[in-house]
Amino acid sequence: MSEKLEGNILVTGTNRGIGLELVKQLAESTGEEAHIYACCRAPEGTRAEALRDLTTQYPGKITLIKLDMSDEDSISAAVQAVSEQIGAGGLNLLINNAAINKPDIPAPLSATGKRDMMDVYETNVVGPFLIAKMLLPLLQRAAEINSPAKGDKMSCRRSAIINISTLVSSIEKCPETFDIAQMYPYRTSKTALNMLTRCQAEDFKRHNILVTAIHPGWVRTEMGGEQAPLTTHDSVHGMLYVMPFLSNKDCGILLDWQGNRIPW
Amino acid sequence: MSEKLEGNILVTGTNRGIGLELVKQLAESTGEEAHIYACCRAPEGTRAEALRDLTTQYPGKITLIKLDMSDEDSISAAVQAVSEQIGAGGLNLLINNAAINKPDIPAPLSATGKRDMMDVYETNVVGPFLIAKMLLPLLQRAAEINSPAKGDKMSCRRSAIINISTLVSSIEKCPETFDIAQMYPYRTSKTALNMLTRCQAEDFKRHNILVTAIHPGWVRTEMGGEQAPLTTHDSVHGMLYVMPFLSNKDCGILLDWQGNRIPW
Ligand SMILES: NC(=O)c1ccc[n+]([C@@H]2O[C@H](COP(=O)([O-])OP(=O)(O)OC[C@H]3O[C@@H](n4cnc5c(N)ncnc54)[C@H](OP(=O)(O)O)[C@@H]3O)[C@@H](O)[C@H]2O)c1
Ligand SMILES: NC(=O)c1ccc[n+]([C@@H]2O[C@H](COP(=O)([O-])OP(=O)(O)OC[C@H]3O[C@@H](n4cnc5c(N)ncnc54)[C@H](OP(=O)(O)O)[C@@H]3O)[C@@H](O)[C@H]2O)c1
Repeated sequence: MSEKLEGNILVTGTNRGIGLELVKQLAESTGEEAHIYACCRAPEGTRAEALRDLTTQYPGKITLIKLDMSDEDSISAAVQAVSEQIGAGGLNLLINNAAINKPDIPAPLSATGKRDMMDVYETNVVGPFLIAKMLLPLLQRAAEINSPAKGDKMSCRRSAIINISTLVSSIEKCPETFDIAQMYPYRTSKTALNMLTRCQAEDFKRHNILVTAIHPGWVRTEMGGEQAPLTTHDSVHGMLYVMPFLSNKDCGILLDWQGNRIPW
Repeated sequence: MSEKLEGNILVTGTNRGIGLELVKQLAESTGEEAHIYACCRAPEGTRAEALRDLTTQYPGKITLIKLDMSDEDSISAAVQAVSEQIGAGGLNLLINNAAINKPDIPAPLSATGKRDMMDVYETNVVGPFLIAKMLLPLLQRAAEINSPAKGDKMSCRRSAIINISTLVSSIEKCPETFDIAQMYPYRTSKTALNMLTRCQAEDFKRHNILVTAIHPGWVRTEMGGEQAPLTTHDSVHGMLYVMPFLSNKDCGILLDWQGNRIPW
């Protein structure tokens, strides 16, 4: 089993936080043939400087793609741009990382309104739903081309979707985490993302596309806050260690950044 | 333990299907003091004739309330109307029954778009979220007034929210049910409703409000279709048998119409 990811990899929400670190470590660790499609809302904007620096540091390895996950036309245009560039190999790995959390933490019920519920669902669930649907032909192509001798062995090197979920998506564990931050919109959205993951796993297994949800840990980012114990480096290092070992048995489940299973 | 529900009961989506049968059996089975707030989108419309007949059959027992769960202003107006009528007793039981399922069954991925995802979430999750938030003062009032000697015993007679969920909300059981009908928007929405249930259970237990999700079975209605094995009579009979026995231990879980637990 390989310990590295390879091939064509698309990551959403890469201008900061965990997404930026994913691009950095993927650029460092993958071989010459690998290519990273790093998506963000404003590739030319001031908030994407660190990402642009990475593309200069690894010439020819990273393509910046403009993508707003709350905008269907933007998703469609991004998929079109990727399709035109990606060639015969197809897409090996889609990492749905972009997400929002509204209102501000601790996000109590009293401060939460309809717009928060709708907006968070749109970005965290409907975006990943649409982009996976639109990228399906490219994921299928990669799965067909990279069919191993055994035939039905799924992997992140062959063709996979990783949906970045969270511990607080676990309905089972809700009583343990609810008092720290209520976050109704975020919790319900990420629980729905887990169901989306399970549906995609069932739906796409006939194409030999692996679909798994991963919790990155509690990470020091704008979303995670300063109190978070994990650096983006350690979180991403963990996830990129886990991903290459995923196979059929991991399809349709929720794991943490160390590969431990989290109950629904 | 009582075998009947009592007090002020509000049910959403009552002009047909399971909601209509809930109003019918509640009107039949509850005592003189009980009052039913039967909500539907168009109380004057042709699709509410059977419901209007019920109000005539049980004079003074049922108040029809205009309520569109996808419209925040409509929810707000309905809560206002109920508040004005309900008096000192508060609201004992809210049954979130109204829901939609789009696109048409089997609702494959290929036929499912962004609007389906957003609309189904709006009605099935955001509606129940908002109405519970707005009715909270009335539910709290009922919980305070009906405090039993023991103090913290929760029940559907005292103060409760029942969110009508479904077996296909279970992420665990998704592989068993996915092939029959994919229904991405409906599944993700009802899984989110389960998380909402669990959050409300945690949030409202300090007020002694019980919150439980119930799967009504596969029922012969417009949504369930003609092949469904259960009549609305038997489904509702089952649920109304289970509800009066619910207490603290059932808070924040998913049961079926016979009281069996369903895994998340
Ligand atoms: N940090 C944690 O402790 C933690 C814990 C559990 C799970 N997670 C999950 O990990 C993932 C990354 O989180 P993070 O901590 O890195 O968050 P973050 O620091 O807030 O970064 C979020 C990223 O998503 C992007 N984004 C937001 N809305 C977008 C949209 N509509 N279209 C495109 N991109 C959008 C942001 O871009 P802009 O700069 O344009 O806003 C940013 O790049 C998320 O899925 C999050 O739910 C994080
Ligand atoms: N039938 C089953 O097999 C089955 C299985 C599992 C769970 N369930 C659940 O059981 C509940 C009742 O289902 P059912 O089979 O009785 O469905 P149904 O026959 O389709 O009836 C749905 C009811 O919800 C109302 N409704 C829909 N959207 C609404 C909105 N925006 N505002 C207010 N009311 C709205 C409808 O009113 P209009 O007439 O105005 O459209 C109707 O009264 C739902 O929560 C459903 O998910 C059903």
